[in-house]
Amino acid sequence: MQSLNLFKIGGELINDPMALTHFLEGFATLDGPKILVHGGGKIATEMEAALGVESILIDGRRVTGEATLRVVTMVYAGLINKNIVATLQSMQCNAIGLCGADADIVPAIKREVKDQDYGFVGDPDSSAINTNAIRLMIENGIVPVLSSITHDRKGTLSNTNADTVSCVLAVALSREYDVSLKYCFDKIGVLRDVNDPHSVLPSITPSQYHSLKNEGLIAGGMIPKLDNGFLAVKCGVHHVSISHTRDITTSTDPKHHAGTILCL
Amino acid sequence: MQSLNLFKIGGELINDPMALTHFLEGFATLDGPKILVHGGGKIATEMEAALGVESILIDGRRVTGEATLRVVTMVYAGLINKNIVATLQSMQCNAIGLCGADADIVPAIKREVKDQDYGFVGDPDSSAINTNAIRLMIENGIVPVLSSITHDRKGTLSNTNADTVSCVLAVALSREYDVSLKYCFDKIGVLRDVNDPHSVLPSITPSQYHSLKNEGLIAGGMIPKLDNGFLAVKCGVHHVSISHTRDITTSTDPKHHAGTILCL
Repeated sequence: MQSLNLFKIGGELINDPMALTHFLEGFATLDGPKILVHGGGKIATEMEAALGVESILIDGRRVTGEATLRVVTMVYAGLINKNIVATLQSMQCNAIGLCGADADIVPAIKREVKDQDYGFVGDPDSSAINTNAIRLMIENGIVPVLSSITHDRKGTLSNTNADTVSCVLAVALSREYDVSLKYCFDKIGVLRDVNDPHSVLPSITPSQYHSLKNEGLIAGGMIPKLDNGFLAVKCGVHHVSISHTRDITTSTDPKHHAGTILCL
Repeated sequence: MQSLNLFKIGGELINDPMALTHFLEGFATLDGPKILVHGGGKIATEMEAALGVESILIDGRRVTGEATLRVVTMVYAGLINKNIVATLQSMQCNAIGLCGADADIVPAIKREVKDQDYGFVGDPDSSAINTNAIRLMIENGIVPVLSSITHDRKGTLSNTNADTVSCVLAVALSREYDVSLKYCFDKIGVLRDVNDPHSVLPSITPSQYHSLKNEGLIAGGMIPKLDNGFLAVKCGVHHVSISHTRDITTSTDPKHHAGTILCL
């Protein structure tokens, strides 16, 4: 099967224009099929504040009322997505900016209300991911750049965690490609001691993860990355890693696995 | 050559959710290759006001400073575009939302500063329109929905009149398709008397247009539609018309030409 690199970048990179440009330069020069999935970052929170929309985050997840849905649609699928595309185009990378509603790529189901109503938050319908449109673009040299806005097929958009979108997309595409899913962020991998960059784990297993989580050494935004990452490995994604955004080039070199590789 | 219908809708329709839904129902059921190009409308102006960005319109053209560029990118390429896509998807129309930067579809050149600096306003580079990506989608049953945000190929987005985007796209596609370009708005066509709907002209020539313009009977937003429409006819677009959005179905029936047809 043909190799495909799927990168996920998050808010901390999007909030740092110089680092983002550096990452995109690396991404633009990578050979072969590739996809970029991006989250939002503090621009959405700033936009909510400017518009007087209350910003509610519970365990790092954004409660998405109607006003917040408008903001994230504007910021993620518009402002961030189209600026990434324009930058990649200037680097001779033929990017196309999409969200999960486009070509029905990521249909999602509104999250059931249990203790907390997260509002317009959708969980991707992993059985219904439409890889045809993605494959069509990739085979024609077009590079999808996907924001994590999804839809319910009934006309309503929804907000989905970008780590989750990356996972379900990687799993769906792994039936047709040899997928490497790379969660890129502002640390060099999973650290045993968050203050010591030398404590990076070259690999991690689910049992190591659960121990470290129980000890409180893994917390915050690392949890959805690892949960989604291990799910992807279990569902057939060939290679899943967590690494620093600046390691984009080395992280695709099988001889120099920067970051942490997820193993079962 | 295969027929292709290219519809342009504007702000007055986007500001009217019921009329927009009705239009999209008609659009979704149309057979054959089709494209939808949309403008913005008052949502961008409202967003500017909410964010404290000064809104400057000169002769109906938005002066686009950096803050306004952010707003129109969010509103046109994000909010409006993705909501249209989600609605069409709910109507079993496999829409994909794009802007001119995506797949390099509409490269543009920053407008030269003469009397007035319009800021980040791009005039499409008509010789460089990338129809390959559009054709690829159309041939695979995917329906492009295009917002009028363009890019300069150097990493900067720009704001372009949606009537102009429709024109250059129709012209570029007319080398490969038998294109019908339909400017849809809130009147039933070009009216001899703007207060009398019975005064619609079934057809109009450039000389009739110039007479009516000199008499002040054609003004405002009709001018870019007719300027762009006549340019499209001159450049080989088979059929160009201006009609009411509610006539979307009849306007594609050659026996019932609703609205006004542009003739040389």
